[in-house]
Amino acid sequence: MTENGVFSRDKVLTIDTMNPTVKNVEYAVRGPIVQRAMQIEKELREGVKKPFTEVIKANIGDAHAMGQQPITFFRQVLALCSYPELLNENMFPEDAKNRARRILQACGGGSVGAYSASQGIDCVRQDVARYIERRDGGVPCDPDNVYLTTGASDGIVTMLKLLVCGEGASRTGVMISIPQYPLYSAALAELGAVQVNYYLNEEKCWSMDLSELESSLAEARKHCNPKALCIINPGNPTGQVQSRQCIEGVIRFAAKERLFLMADEVYQDNVYAEGCQFHSFKKVLFELGPEYSDNVELASFHSTSKCYMGECGFRGGYMEVINMDAEVQAQLSKLVSVRLCPPVPGQALMDLVVNSPQPGEPSHITFMKERTATLSLLAEKAKLTEQILNTVPGITCNPVQGAMYSFPNISLPEKSIKEAKALGQAPDMFYCMKLLEETGICLVPGSGFGQKDGTYHFRSGQPSLLKHFITAFHILRWV
Amino acid sequence: MTENGVFSRDKVLTIDTMNPTVKNVEYAVRGPIVQRAMQIEKELREGVKKPFTEVIKANIGDAHAMGQQPITFFRQVLALCSYPELLNENMFPEDAKNRARRILQACGGGSVGAYSASQGIDCVRQDVARYIERRDGGVPCDPDNVYLTTGASDGIVTMLKLLVCGEGASRTGVMISIPQYPLYSAALAELGAVQVNYYLNEEKCWSMDLSELESSLAEARKHCNPKALCIINPGNPTGQVQSRQCIEGVIRFAAKERLFLMADEVYQDNVYAEGCQFHSFKKVLFELGPEYSDNVELASFHSTSKCYMGECGFRGGYMEVINMDAEVQAQLSKLVSVRLCPPVPGQALMDLVVNSPQPGEPSHITFMKERTATLSLLAEKAKLTEQILNTVPGITCNPVQGAMYSFPNISLPEKSIKEAKALGQAPDMFYCMKLLEETGICLVPGSGFGQKDGTYHFRSGQPSLLKHFITAFHILRWV
Repeated sequence: MTENGVFSRDKVLTIDTMNPTVKNVEYAVRGPIVQRAMQIEKELREGVKKPFTEVIKANIGDAHAMGQQPITFFRQVLALCSYPELLNENMFPEDAKNRARRILQACGGGSVGAYSASQGIDCVRQDVARYIERRDGGVPCDPDNVYLTTGASDGIVTMLKLLVCGEGASRTGVMISIPQYPLYSAALAELGAVQVNYYLNEEKCWSMDLSELESSLAEARKHCNPKALCIINPGNPTGQVQSRQCIEGVIRFAAKERLFLMADEVYQDNVYAEGCQFHSFKKVLFELGPEYSDNVELASFHSTSKCYMGECGFRGGYMEVINMDAEVQAQLSKLVSVRLCPPVPGQALMDLVVNSPQPGEPSHITFMKERTATLSLLAEKAKLTEQILNTVPGITCNPVQGAMYSFPNISLPEKSIKEAKALGQAPDMFYCMKLLEETGICLVPGSGFGQKDGTYHFRSGQPSLLKHFITAFHILRWV
Repeated sequence: MTENGVFSRDKVLTIDTMNPTVKNVEYAVRGPIVQRAMQIEKELREGVKKPFTEVIKANIGDAHAMGQQPITFFRQVLALCSYPELLNENMFPEDAKNRARRILQACGGGSVGAYSASQGIDCVRQDVARYIERRDGGVPCDPDNVYLTTGASDGIVTMLKLLVCGEGASRTGVMISIPQYPLYSAALAELGAVQVNYYLNEEKCWSMDLSELESSLAEARKHCNPKALCIINPGNPTGQVQSRQCIEGVIRFAAKERLFLMADEVYQDNVYAEGCQFHSFKKVLFELGPEYSDNVELASFHSTSKCYMGECGFRGGYMEVINMDAEVQAQLSKLVSVRLCPPVPGQALMDLVVNSPQPGEPSHITFMKERTATLSLLAEKAKLTEQILNTVPGITCNPVQGAMYSFPNISLPEKSIKEAKALGQAPDMFYCMKLLEETGICLVPGSGFGQKDGTYHFRSGQPSLLKHFITAFHILRWV
């Protein structure tokens, strides 16, 4: 009580009274190193002298921020949808206008400012279904199984929400690859699920070993109830592209062990290495025959944020659910209705991705030129990254077969490891922090993704390459 | 096992094995009645004969779907941001171009397709802060306390996530008004929190009674740990505008009882009734002096979806946190980073709302004209709704002082109540379902928002009015 009798109180909400599961959440991609990078940027703006003039953010796969240009056709349609007065102007090609008209007709009151159906705009879901059918060589796709989402993250978290329950030894376990994309560990921590790690095989270009899956599962069954298996293909942060044979093995494993499959396939167009090809889990599932395709439960996720689009800011995405129990699917539909609808501009963009300009349409040539140029540049960067990194003593980098990152192994000398430990830091965090302070390059330490004990890595996106890695050469002297 | 020895299995994820808290979620605004309305629309398209030719969706506050026109200036800037080539065209006013340039400069790579900072674009948060300061007569606002969100719903759910924990009698309780907006009950169910109801006083135009708050809290303390108090002002679904005196009482109550305040103020520009005025919780808090303004924890929510904007599809919004513990706020910042960022077009739109054309700028006159026309129309509809509903025997409707809905009381005859109960339906659901089947009008039954036992209501948005309510006259004969 204060003197005048009202109160002088502690906070209601403190670190001790708040939800403990939130405290357990970690998200390295935007963690302490990125906080520090933002501070440094501010210091640079304020005129503080540094050994560099700008921060190079290689912490995140943010294509446009790294200079990738948006696809003209997409942005024309989005402008038309935002301000339909432009439909009266001559400056836009007819196919862009037609796409915009079609999207606007499907919106309440003809406005992208209206809520859509919670599952997403009907015609967009239909277009997604047709895209999936084309991609998978005719395997049927029911638009009712397609849910538009706020980026892929939203879909992944929603699926995990449906799956996770139980207490103690019957608590839901979810198998995720290590290294993983930390959305998974963050969502599992928040839901209080048991994170069941399976390690990718770095020696074999980050492939999945069935024996590793088996032993990880057997171990997990001793203390939780593993119900789902998550795969990221092409891999993030590890850049591998799973072979058809590997995917087949994973599906058979999931069927035998009764696991719900979650396939994060947001990098499906980002495949660079010769001999590598993207195989969707759904397609392989159906090729295994009805015993599998009628039974194995699968959710697959895609997004507008990666591939040649790189439109992260629009938060567009979809998920397709296959063999989901009808009652559960009704619960899913109810659950997504609470957030009303995914952002409509992101839905429109998703539509354009799955229904891009066709041969004969006025925008087709430009679209293909832009798409090819972007994917070629990404492929070139992937190759260069691997090559340059492997010339650096102490760094070993697997081929970047796909996705948008490299995840090289770094040998840190004992001295650095000790110094880091004395500071209570993970050694690779210590390394990345030094690199940031001395060169302005912002990477994410491997410990944020998970790695075998005693190994150290970093994840790097693909920014302006030469500048980035030539600097790294110099820096690596101190380790 | 099937004959060829693989498996024929039950689903992994069934209604029995799924997360039970998700099953407890209900969201009436998009519930069974809306499902049925969508079916009926499909039937109408397929040529099925009905006593009406279109479904009138009054289930949701979706302004554009109901014919409200977007603000020209907002859409011009959004088009410019989407397709910056348009900056070279003469067709846009200079102030629209300047706003677009400023937003694009704040985006990574000058693209709305880049991720923003997780908390939202810096300059947008600064603009929000200045807006709040103007609105609240100079009470200071720190942009670091502003978080851009994916609609207001996202902010509300995020705050609840931080608050809810504990088990059994120490489980977090959250006080919500009854009638409530069902996002609250849905989020609390999903988080497994205890929903603590306090009833609004229908006899006194849905005002808040302090004695009701007190008795509700005292009762709740017997079985849970009430930590937060949610207020929706102007009210949804009930349309009341809280008086300054009432808000002061609520703040004093929260201070005395140590409750975290959550003020849902998304209808802050939707105030129609004479003598009514919007008072932000923050402003009143600061007017009560430092004992309160230095202590009471408050989160306030706003959105681009309501008011004169009605831009629901963009999912723009913000929350401001006041007196939040620094460590908790760091956790909040971490938590929002997992979803990467709110949709950037929605952030841009939020910026335009808080930084609209100023006197002297080329778009100012048109902007003010459009804004005033929209708000006047909404005010007129609010008045007409109340008047027309009150002429119907069996219906009593409080003045619609603000927001975008009416929530009239309906007297249902015993016969209808019995019929409904025989069908296992809430009587007002039965009524609304009949109304939908016979007239095509889609309302939400009061039971979806909560109401005193034995009373029945519906919530109606404000669609093309005359058509709507004249039909209702006829229908009401059967009750």
